[in-house]
Amino acid sequence: MATAADITAMGRAIALAARGLGSTSPNPVVGCVITDASGAVAGEGFHQRAGGPHAEVHALRAAGERARGGTAYVTLEPCNHTGRTGPCAQALLAAGISRVVHAVGDPNPQATGGADTLRAAGVQVEQGLLAAEAEAGNAAWLTSVRLGRPYVLWKYAATLDGRIAAADATSRWITSPEARADVHRLRAEADAVIVGSGTARADDPQLGVRGIDGATQPLRVVVDTGATAVRPGARVLDDTAPTLVAVAEDAPAGHLPEDTVLRLPRAATGPGLDVDALLAALHARGVRSVLLEGGPTLAGAFVAAGKVDKVVGYLAPVLLGAGPAALGDAGITTIAQALRLEVTETVPIGPDLRITAAPAPARKGN
Amino acid sequence: MATAADITAMGRAIALAARGLGSTSPNPVVGCVITDASGAVAGEGFHQRAGGPHAEVHALRAAGERARGGTAYVTLEPCNHTGRTGPCAQALLAAGISRVVHAVGDPNPQATGGADTLRAAGVQVEQGLLAAEAEAGNAAWLTSVRLGRPYVLWKYAATLDGRIAAADATSRWITSPEARADVHRLRAEADAVIVGSGTARADDPQLGVRGIDGATQPLRVVVDTGATAVRPGARVLDDTAPTLVAVAEDAPAGHLPEDTVLRLPRAATGPGLDVDALLAALHARGVRSVLLEGGPTLAGAFVAAGKVDKVVGYLAPVLLGAGPAALGDAGITTIAQALRLEVTETVPIGPDLRITAAPAPARKGN
Ligand SMILES: NC(=O)c1ccc[n+]([C@@H]2O[C@H](COP(=O)([O-])OP(=O)(O)OC[C@H]3O[C@@H](n4cnc5c(N)ncnc54)[C@H](OP(=O)(O)O)[C@@H]3O)[C@@H](O)[C@H]2O)c1
Ligand SMILES: NC(=O)c1ccc[n+]([C@@H]2O[C@H](COP(=O)([O-])OP(=O)(O)OC[C@H]3O[C@@H](n4cnc5c(N)ncnc54)[C@H](OP(=O)(O)O)[C@@H]3O)[C@@H](O)[C@H]2O)c1
Repeated sequence: MATAADITAMGRAIALAARGLGSTSPNPVVGCVITDASGAVAGEGFHQRAGGPHAEVHALRAAGERARGGTAYVTLEPCNHTGRTGPCAQALLAAGISRVVHAVGDPNPQATGGADTLRAAGVQVEQGLLAAEAEAGNAAWLTSVRLGRPYVLWKYAATLDGRIAAADATSRWITSPEARADVHRLRAEADAVIVGSGTARADDPQLGVRGIDGATQPLRVVVDTGATAVRPGARVLDDTAPTLVAVAEDAPAGHLPEDTVLRLPRAATGPGLDVDALLAALHARGVRSVLLEGGPTLAGAFVAAGKVDKVVGYLAPVLLGAGPAALGDAGITTIAQALRLEVTETVPIGPDLRITAAPAPARKGN
Repeated sequence: MATAADITAMGRAIALAARGLGSTSPNPVVGCVITDASGAVAGEGFHQRAGGPHAEVHALRAAGERARGGTAYVTLEPCNHTGRTGPCAQALLAAGISRVVHAVGDPNPQATGGADTLRAAGVQVEQGLLAAEAEAGNAAWLTSVRLGRPYVLWKYAATLDGRIAAADATSRWITSPEARADVHRLRAEADAVIVGSGTARADDPQLGVRGIDGATQPLRVVVDTGATAVRPGARVLDDTAPTLVAVAEDAPAGHLPEDTVLRLPRAATGPGLDVDALLAALHARGVRSVLLEGGPTLAGAFVAAGKVDKVVGYLAPVLLGAGPAALGDAGITTIAQALRLEVTETVPIGPDLRITAAPAPARKGN
């Protein structure tokens, strides 16, 4: 039975883990709280970036000698492998930790086994405390491990009647400054941001994170089959962050910096590039989470491919009655084929609403 | 200064008033709580239907002798005129009430003056307690008095991406049974329900209130310019409630029951009938609040005419990527002309969201 103190400590570890979102790829986010033998908090830590120390190591350093005989609360099972920073199970043993409580088992075959190692050495190990909360905090990474492709969050901003622009294509601004600032938080939490050539052509977006101190810039990706939308001087080619322009294998891309060009096969049916190949290429580059910023045509292709894991819609209390819709053709022609989601959160963001939804559990894993 | 007891009593009066929504037209909804000289609740009442006793009379009857020396909490200023039921100001005086607290002054020129009459007779009269809440509860009636036309609530049900049907026109069911039940509550609270000929043709809707005990059926209105959509045998012509089929002055309507035909001028520009003329005709028949159930074309005409006072959207967490939009052409071509609203409420209704919004205050009164 978990005590109230156990729950508090794990809740804190989950909050710490979230601070790493967007910076730890290809690693998970992990938070750790160490309490001393009397139960007082002795150290805290979180995994800040790949290649840097794991959460447990940060927390053990902070705790020092007070870790001896204490408890480690970790959001993910401590790793067992000797990676870039040495196995955490060994570090916990060396520090004299006598009890380890972790929320979620490590699904990564290379890392798993930490709990067994600890148990074999006489440490009391418990799994599952606040598991649902910890899973939610690590949803992107866990999904990418399970499915072998990056987790995809599709974001859109629309009017109450589902329009992203007026009939004459004007759209500045449908949503509020608060909503636009919130999108920068989503960008900071993602490993990569993707837009289609239509958006690149219409908006010349920069796609960087602005206004968030210390944010890790995501990889910027434009899906531009014919290599015609991103021209030299495009804002997405500035030096804020690395950029990939995904183009067809035969596209004339000589005008683009060579290291930005990502050659991919065309979609088997329909226009543009193959969505699965795009995600596989990004996964191979260590991208575990993607913010799909649209536009509607590319978002439709992702929905059609069953590659949307979460939807965040910013709805402005505005009516237009005309103009392009938030989601384009997704191959759905009749109501029985509709993609059914579950609303997981609704919050006001300034005058707008942010609605978060995910495919209903029965449909997950597609 | 209002005491906590004053606030509690007025809050109760506002809740009582709401029970009359949909049944009091052309009168307002009114609630009343009477406390005795010691401050204990002695009687409660609300206006139940036009022609029936006013709220004060119900409450005074319930209080009997205990009203003497007591306080009357009324959501609206007690009336002064000798209408079908005699002036309430006199009834309060006769019962020996010594203090009257009302939330909102009566804007109706025939009814106003009750407060003066009471004051002249030595009663302590206070106005303004919970005025905003009471105004909101009486929004439809107050709007109709101020603007001289029925209050219009536009309701729609759509997917997250703003579609009311799939590409093949199938739409059963986008929203949940809970959301559909909630619409029956809106119908019960309205004096009239309006749909366009497109909806009549596609759905053959019955437009009655189902599943709510004791509900007053609204007047059913179909806007059918050419008198071609509502055919003999249409469900909207059943005997649940009265029905009007609004048709052009020259439309061949011989197949319709004579008392259902409402002849109106055509719109000055664009298709269909004149929206203002429709609202004026309904107002003349005592209709103070209208539930506009769509479809998108007719809703667009109402938005274009500036005749939408409140929007209730039921958003299902569903994506379609194709299909008709919730709102059709409203004459808005560029973002600066967009109709800007304020979200006043967001509540989950089963798996769906109900979003309520009203034109931002600066734009009210159009
Ligand atoms: N409100 C919002 O949330 C939001 C977000 C983003 C954009 N927007 C707006 O959306 C508008 C642009 O919309 P859009 O739909 O034209 O642009 P888009 O979705 O950004 O780009 C569509 C293009 O992506 C390319 N593409 C590559 N692979 C594809 C595939 N597998 N499936 C489909 N398309 C693929 C295609 O062009 P190629 O064949 O040339 O590659 C396609 O025409 C702009 O006005 C922008 O402001 C709004
Ligand atoms: N999801 C929802 O909330 C919801 C609600 C209602 C309907 N629907 C769906 O909406 C679809 C029908 O949509 P719709 O847009 O065709 O139907 P609609 O808005 O109900 O009817 C449009 C028709 O109303 C008539 N009309 C009369 N006066 C008008 C005026 N001033 N301005 C514009 N129109 C006027 C016009 O036809 P005449 O010239 O023949 O009079 C017009 O074609 C159906 O599939 C229905 O299921 C959905």
